[in-house]
Amino acid sequence: MLEKIDLSKSMKSQKAKEIYEEQSKKLSALQRECKQAKIPVMIVFEGLGAAGKGTQINKLIQALDPRGFHVFSIGKETEEEKMHPFLWRFWIKTPEKGRIAIFDRSWYRRVLSDRFDKLVKEEEIPNAFSDIQFFEKQLTDDGMVIIKLFLYISKKEQKKRFHSLLDSKETAWRVTKDDLKRNEDYEEYLEMNEEMFKNTDTENAPWTIIEATDKDYAYAKIMTTVVNRLEEALERHKNITELEEKIKENLESVQKDRTEENYFKAGALSKADLTKSLDQKDYKEELERLQKRLKLLHNSIYRMRIPVVLAFEGWDAAGKGGAIKRLTSSLDPRGYAVYPTASPNDIEKMHHYLWRFWNNMPKAGHISIFDRTWYGRVMVERIEGFCTEAEWKRAYQEINEMEEHLANSGAAILKFWMHIDKEEQKRRFQERMDNPEKQWKITEEDWRNREKWDLYEEAVDEMLIRTSTAYAPWVIVEGNSKYYARVKVLKTVVKALEEAINLRK
Amino acid sequence: MLEKIDLSKSMKSQKAKEIYEEQSKKLSALQRECKQAKIPVMIVFEGLGAAGKGTQINKLIQALDPRGFHVFSIGKETEEEKMHPFLWRFWIKTPEKGRIAIFDRSWYRRVLSDRFDKLVKEEEIPNAFSDIQFFEKQLTDDGMVIIKLFLYISKKEQKKRFHSLLDSKETAWRVTKDDLKRNEDYEEYLEMNEEMFKNTDTENAPWTIIEATDKDYAYAKIMTTVVNRLEEALERHKNITELEEKIKENLESVQKDRTEENYFKAGALSKADLTKSLDQKDYKEELERLQKRLKLLHNSIYRMRIPVVLAFEGWDAAGKGGAIKRLTSSLDPRGYAVYPTASPNDIEKMHHYLWRFWNNMPKAGHISIFDRTWYGRVMVERIEGFCTEAEWKRAYQEINEMEEHLANSGAAILKFWMHIDKEEQKRRFQERMDNPEKQWKITEEDWRNREKWDLYEEAVDEMLIRTSTAYAPWVIVEGNSKYYARVKVLKTVVKALEEAINLRK
Repeated sequence: MLEKIDLSKSMKSQKAKEIYEEQSKKLSALQRECKQAKIPVMIVFEGLGAAGKGTQINKLIQALDPRGFHVFSIGKETEEEKMHPFLWRFWIKTPEKGRIAIFDRSWYRRVLSDRFDKLVKEEEIPNAFSDIQFFEKQLTDDGMVIIKLFLYISKKEQKKRFHSLLDSKETAWRVTKDDLKRNEDYEEYLEMNEEMFKNTDTENAPWTIIEATDKDYAYAKIMTTVVNRLEEALERHKNITELEEKIKENLESVQKDRTEENYFKAGALSKADLTKSLDQKDYKEELERLQKRLKLLHNSIYRMRIPVVLAFEGWDAAGKGGAIKRLTSSLDPRGYAVYPTASPNDIEKMHHYLWRFWNNMPKAGHISIFDRTWYGRVMVERIEGFCTEAEWKRAYQEINEMEEHLANSGAAILKFWMHIDKEEQKRRFQERMDNPEKQWKITEEDWRNREKWDLYEEAVDEMLIRTSTAYAPWVIVEGNSKYYARVKVLKTVVKALEEAINLRK
Repeated sequence: MLEKIDLSKSMKSQKAKEIYEEQSKKLSALQRECKQAKIPVMIVFEGLGAAGKGTQINKLIQALDPRGFHVFSIGKETEEEKMHPFLWRFWIKTPEKGRIAIFDRSWYRRVLSDRFDKLVKEEEIPNAFSDIQFFEKQLTDDGMVIIKLFLYISKKEQKKRFHSLLDSKETAWRVTKDDLKRNEDYEEYLEMNEEMFKNTDTENAPWTIIEATDKDYAYAKIMTTVVNRLEEALERHKNITELEEKIKENLESVQKDRTEENYFKAGALSKADLTKSLDQKDYKEELERLQKRLKLLHNSIYRMRIPVVLAFEGWDAAGKGGAIKRLTSSLDPRGYAVYPTASPNDIEKMHHYLWRFWNNMPKAGHISIFDRTWYGRVMVERIEGFCTEAEWKRAYQEINEMEEHLANSGAAILKFWMHIDKEEQKRRFQERMDNPEKQWKITEEDWRNREKWDLYEEAVDEMLIRTSTAYAPWVIVEGNSKYYARVKVLKTVVKALEEAINLRK
């Protein structure tokens, strides 16, 4: 692909400037329209060393309101960043709806310079490509516009530019040994770039190659590319908004249909044996034994730098809080954190639904415990209509992809469904109402959710089937007996940590 | 003070356990009450090495709902943290209203171990003490409860514990050379602790010394201390809430009084010469010259790691946006960011009003440009009654303290008041209404704010007097001529950066 590019492309300076100016005016207006339409935008600048990324970014932002964009300069990973999956630092930088994030280098470091410099192992590269594809797909499916620009110059031109930088004392520090090495091995490096294009030039996030020999030509081409992509996005947004209104009209009949499509009825939940129980004496013994064991394992995973994700879902009053408490009480508080998940706040609403969870993913050696999770997307959001049908149906795969990315980075992941039957829930609700010390635990909403038990059961059964994976299994915890449930959670965690540790040995 | 402490204090294990259990139950309920009353809590564990901070934290949190607290383990500063004022990493960790943050080591590292290990220069210590006092005062004034616990053991006991840790292969890694050194020089280290108590044992954030030789005794004392402090806080909260209602009743008459108290009328603003102007030719020449100069200076401050804060306030339509644009257009986008300030979102409302600005303060070598700022507290919040009179009156000092802390860490700070007269504003509003490309810039609210011109003028005059300091001066920019204003902003920034750079040479 790259060899077919005509690097001699240039333009009369005057003509290029005219195009730049004309498009530049459009961009100012487009930025405002995107803000209004709440379209988030990511613009990626990649390319060969000395191709002029800095200069080009500078020229592009002349047209932008500085209050609406942020430029991120992406260097080598810091110590903190190394303790997370490689996409983590980009997830937490995804822009709010309506804002623009510009990346000077990006997640493509992983498969370009970091690969070339052997900071990434060759066997990690295939995963890196698929992780990148998933990342971009998830964002664009959510309305993000991703514009990827690759600044390209010839080996000769690059060499010339490096030497002119080295000639001046003011600029010499900008050229590193690695830069020169990449020029020397230009052909080899270009091959990696070719492979990158083959794997990541997708319909939803295409690459645009910018012939960067002539600066003015590049200014004009970048500006035109950005303008075109934003115009397309706004057009698509308009169409989608119209479509959504039509869908809303049809929603009632659709919902009626849905109740008849009970594919997932009588699934895993109905098969759980809720008579399982444990007496107090055994409970106390087991609890003590398991907590001691867990304490030691926590120490080991800290030293072996294994990140651990424990996700808790379940019926209201099924005992999530109690189980989490028994789990954490033997852990060193410096090595874990519990994240309760409520309705998204207004910042969270301005991001992809997975963004807030990415912010809380554990670093190496730490445990993140989620009390309710990203699975809200396919339960409460599905049932209450907080997202569209297309969105929650897509979510199963998105969630699997996220968990796979975490697992690829070495994380141990467990997901618990705390299960009780409808009678037991009623008993517990009543108990909470009657006990002044527990009244705070029960709200009107709990009773309302209870009325939707069947809808939830269907959703949960579908979720368990679609998102039970080898790297992130669901564990159904039979919870009518609290003692039994707490011990099962602890036992499962102990076993999973032992396995994770053995895998590393 | 420390020498008078009776370190032989202990308790029959049974008795201590009873106290712990009894207080523990209270704490569970208090956590919920504090959540409801939206009281944020910080619990600081400091003390001598091997005094048992980890164990004690573990025991304390047994009583807490894990969804409501977070434990921060505070090590040496990371590279990122070193590029900010030393309190920055604590400001961004202050808990939301209703939540508890527990610190295993804290900002006291600065005046204890980091001082002892000579990571901080002796001449920085007096500033560190006053910065800490201001930090704690600002938070407690805002309703934060700060509980500071100092775990104390004797030299002999410490030595014994270090050696028992060293004896086991499992725990030996926890004892460092620095630890042993602090045991050897126990008396000298203790003196630093004495000095710390003298400077920071304040009414609003007192220290409690925990005799930690007997573990059970310490469990009980810590639990009792935390319970007492939270009970006090809730009591105070109840009283304040009642008081606030009374104040609300009296508000109308108070407001009437206020309009007569025009101490600050006819202040700095009325003296500004708004006839100052610049013609287009001079503007273009000056602009080009200054932008070139600024570009070079930006490079220098980056290399000299000087952080820069540029704050913009001013009348609606006074030209803040235009001035910021002329300022940034010659800067490398990787070295600055523009932060627009809107009404606080719901996360921001759950924090101290300065918290969101702390989050965006520049690291060393970078420029943060604020389009509207923390001065909203003494302008719009004051005038619209979004905060109490006591709160905005206190804010002048709090803001000065914050800016002083930034300046102490090496930051250059400039604050611009973009000034136009009422007639000019009307002309610009009208122009925006008439021009379809500019209509988005003008809202109903702008017209409403305009009606309060006199109230704002009074508030601004007071603000300019109370917060113009040597380390963070206000610059009134005569803005009726946009050309003049933009050039004045650029000139002022250039001059300030030159001074900052010369100071470092």
